[in-house]
Amino acid sequence: MINPFDDTYFMRKALQEAEAAFEKGEIPVGAVVIIDDKIIARSHNLTELLNDVTAHAEMQAITSAANFLGGKYLHNCTLYVTLEPCQMCAGALYWSQISKIVYGATDEQRGFKAMGTKLHPKTKVIGGVLEDEASALMKRFFIEKRNLN
Amino acid sequence: MINPFDDTYFMRKALQEAEAAFEKGEIPVGAVVIIDDKIIARSHNLTELLNDVTAHAEMQAITSAANFLGGKYLHNCTLYVTLEPCQMCAGALYWSQISKIVYGATDEQRGFKAMGTKLHPKTKVIGGVLEDEASALMKRFFIEKRNLN
Repeated sequence: MINPFDDTYFMRKALQEAEAAFEKGEIPVGAVVIIDDKIIARSHNLTELLNDVTAHAEMQAITSAANFLGGKYLHNCTLYVTLEPCQMCAGALYWSQISKIVYGATDEQRGFKAMGTKLHPKTKVIGGVLEDEASALMKRFFIEKRNLN
Repeated sequence: MINPFDDTYFMRKALQEAEAAFEKGEIPVGAVVIIDDKIIARSHNLTELLNDVTAHAEMQAITSAANFLGGKYLHNCTLYVTLEPCQMCAGALYWSQISKIVYGATDEQRGFKAMGTKLHPKTKVIGGVLEDEASALMKRFFIEKRNLN
């Protein structure tokens, strides 16, 4: 039997969050956290609205998921995020001991891989899921932003 | 003339915050952010109370200082923190473009230097200010914790 709840399914949910960020004029990054195929946190980048560099989608998703679970560790959870996490978010994910991270587009400049940030040894990582959609949304955002300025 | 508002002065304020964390059963790390010799944010670690791995003293201090300033960048600000920042906090400080970071005790295991986290090129760093006091507080915390369990 085919399980409809695969990485593509949940990345589409994260992309919907990224679209919501786009509509607010935020760099369009979205995230969801799941446990047992159930979404327990949804978030999108709010750094501009909140005037807060810490308001990345992943940071909010970690806080929100921990709040749902009633504990600070995200064991058995998967984070889906449309863009490769940065040093800060990867550092937070390290502390959370999250089981799995699935990201869409690679961030070759500021992504945790290029920056050398360490994840928890328990954490599995998959990149490139719906990468084209996530990249296209980012490109559209920066083109529109350039044209407005 | 002697300026009483030196790094030691502000680190003592951060140590007071660390003491407040200690009293709550939190790993005792405290922080303050200053601009023009004026404290604009005070915070201490609240990861246990909030069940949130992102609630490090520095993260709260960054959010709080940006809120005070009405902008997300911490230009001309200095963060005083009793323990060397971790990957997450250093990553957040990177985004904040903070001018200066002063820390107390070195974290040889999880500190940003050992982990190789990059700071913003504009950011100056000084370590070891009131290091003995900060280290002693941490040691006392872990000894008491061990004896309770």
